[in-house]
Amino acid sequence: MAIPTDLDTFDIKLLDHGVAVIAFNRPKKYNALNPQVYDQWGRALEWARKSEDVRVVVLTGNGKYYSSGQELAIPSSDELEEAGGADNVFKKRSVFTMKVVRELVHFPKLIIAAINGPVIGFGVTSTALCDVVYSVPDATFNTPFMQLGFCAEACSSVVFPRVMGYSRANEMLLMGRKFTAEEMKEAGVVARIFPKETFMEEVLKLATASAKFPPNAMKETKALIRDPDFDFLDKVAEREMELLGKRMSSDESAQAIMEFMMAKHDRKQSKL
Amino acid sequence: MAIPTDLDTFDIKLLDHGVAVIAFNRPKKYNALNPQVYDQWGRALEWARKSEDVRVVVLTGNGKYYSSGQELAIPSSDELEEAGGADNVFKKRSVFTMKVVRELVHFPKLIIAAINGPVIGFGVTSTALCDVVYSVPDATFNTPFMQLGFCAEACSSVVFPRVMGYSRANEMLLMGRKFTAEEMKEAGVVARIFPKETFMEEVLKLATASAKFPPNAMKETKALIRDPDFDFLDKVAEREMELLGKRMSSDESAQAIMEFMMAKHDRKQSKL
Amino acid sequence: MAIPTDLDTFDIKLLDHGVAVIAFNRPKKYNALNPQVYDQWGRALEWARKSEDVRVVVLTGNGKYYSSGQELAIPSSDELEEAGGADNVFKKRSVFTMKVVRELVHFPKLIIAAINGPVIGFGVTSTALCDVVYSVPDATFNTPFMQLGFCAEACSSVVFPRVMGYSRANEMLLMGRKFTAEEMKEAGVVARIFPKETFMEEVLKLATASAKFPPNAMKETKALIRDPDFDFLDKVAEREMELLGKRMSSDESAQAIMEFMMAKHDRKQSKL
Repeated sequence: MAIPTDLDTFDIKLLDHGVAVIAFNRPKKYNALNPQVYDQWGRALEWARKSEDVRVVVLTGNGKYYSSGQELAIPSSDELEEAGGADNVFKKRSVFTMKVVRELVHFPKLIIAAINGPVIGFGVTSTALCDVVYSVPDATFNTPFMQLGFCAEACSSVVFPRVMGYSRANEMLLMGRKFTAEEMKEAGVVARIFPKETFMEEVLKLATASAKFPPNAMKETKALIRDPDFDFLDKVAEREMELLGKRMSSDESAQAIMEFMMAKHDRKQSKL
Repeated sequence: MAIPTDLDTFDIKLLDHGVAVIAFNRPKKYNALNPQVYDQWGRALEWARKSEDVRVVVLTGNGKYYSSGQELAIPSSDELEEAGGADNVFKKRSVFTMKVVRELVHFPKLIIAAINGPVIGFGVTSTALCDVVYSVPDATFNTPFMQLGFCAEACSSVVFPRVMGYSRANEMLLMGRKFTAEEMKEAGVVARIFPKETFMEEVLKLATASAKFPPNAMKETKALIRDPDFDFLDKVAEREMELLGKRMSSDESAQAIMEFMMAKHDRKQSKL
Repeated sequence: MAIPTDLDTFDIKLLDHGVAVIAFNRPKKYNALNPQVYDQWGRALEWARKSEDVRVVVLTGNGKYYSSGQELAIPSSDELEEAGGADNVFKKRSVFTMKVVRELVHFPKLIIAAINGPVIGFGVTSTALCDVVYSVPDATFNTPFMQLGFCAEACSSVVFPRVMGYSRANEMLLMGRKFTAEEMKEAGVVARIFPKETFMEEVLKLATASAKFPPNAMKETKALIRDPDFDFLDKVAEREMELLGKRMSSDESAQAIMEFMMAKHDRKQSKL
């Protein structure tokens, strides 16, 4: 299967031995996620899953950020009209997001997150669904769900506590604390930190070594590790998404977003 | 709802933005736990849960200790008579303890443990049920259940291994090893350690920031995190408590307590 | 019950207070595991479980290695003939291996792994089933399952992610990375590292202290910790073993082993 050519928000490369690099490619937007990006992300993962040429996937970001998470954009009048109202806009968007979550939870091949810079929101939570996470030293991990009146997503409500313990997971999910790469390593989400200069080189060397392993051994061992949680995680993802829909349309969240935006604006003004 | 005024073993304050500080307040007894304290603790948590003025709870201790755990006291003749025998004394006590465990497991708001000093037994295990744990650098964490012939309680038999891994959890629960604050941080139970001088200041700053978040977002996200374990943890708590009753009335434990007391007495004598 | 005298691949000692030391004792073979060793290991654990003289078990290795894991040996013509073909050889072997896994999962007394040197494969995965793991500083932990086209075993497919988090567990299980003792401590598998000079002395001091605890308190508390997972782990072990049988008889694995052996041979040659 050829690399899909219509996924213009991504930079996709297929390297020797079947290592596919899927990179967020909107560096000027700090690789923010909007419905189009979610849609193309899901399709990129579907391709990598189905293509017999792909053995191992590396997710990363082009530019300074890995991903700045969900774009906080008010639906355009076109989008509103097309979908038939604000409620439907969220429903339509959530289909794309759920596809990404499902692809990651059920991904049958080794998938590595190579965190090249700061990462926010869904960028962080989706990372914890990858098999192995590597990071540059100066990346930060931030899930400001409470600041925005949202809620945990991408199975983070159960995967974070399981990996990090309650204390650290709740600092991220309930208190909105930004973690450093070193702290995420202590928490067990990041396996190792490599210097910025040689980061992708190191990651690709490891990915390539793994791509040479017998593919069925890899696939079947990954299934041993992941299968027992499939039903549970699918249900968790649905429950989170249902709640997120309610949260995003709540007055509480609307006000929180407005305050968040204004605080950001004030910080920018004060720097002038 | 006004702060309850009849809980004289606690020091309860309601600060700005709905931060409730519930402090063990028997510093001369190193904040030891007896039936009266368990009873009042349960009622303090019930108030914090029900009061609409409370957004975030901080548990801490006045004086040198956070809590020295279960008071090792032989039931008084009054208590024995009132309850109708030693077996009933334990049953009556355990009602209060179970209420605390249930309030902590199901607590619907953010609850932070601020460990201001050494903590022992039920003080440690109940801490792991809080959402986030902060500690001073020189606190120690000790669960001498085996030394006393008791058993794990407050869901620690499953929460400790899940958060700390088997190796560290079993060092605490089965080998009775005392952990430092730094070791509890490595184990994932403690999120962060703050200097003693500014400890409560730091914790209250974080608690206050969280108290300002949209309350429903907080409540619903915490429910996502905790709900899936409610049934399991309720059953674990009951099973532990049933076993603890048997253990406490066993000859094995009676002898272990006597030896523990005598060793303590000898250590005191040798210091004179 | 007397120490069994027919387990010549082990060195078994019963020390004061009921501390049984069970040591792999084929130092010239780096304590590699073959059907005979698995068989004797299972019988040694069964003895330690049943003997009323045994309170605490310490597993360790004599010589430089703890254990170098599964011996990569082609079945001898005798073994093939006796079993009736290659398929039956694996089935016969797996009975011994499964007995060890079952004894470890259900072991009712405190069992400590004292990692005295490098450990590979089943040596590593079985270690994670012990209650507490101590290590010398220079031990390494290696599970080259993918290099050999095998799969995870001894419940490591679920116990490793649970204890270490997905990222580290998958580096070991899916990417075949060798971990240091310090990394295994960070990952929560190893509780503590003691200097090589005083290693067994330290471990035996701790084991002896635990052996003095009331034995029923220990047994019943360990049951609280382990019981909830018995059914799940038994099923996982069976599923892993079934897959391992298929993997070991696959062409993929045969080729991987041959390449592994040749690479080893080349490394040896290049050192001459």
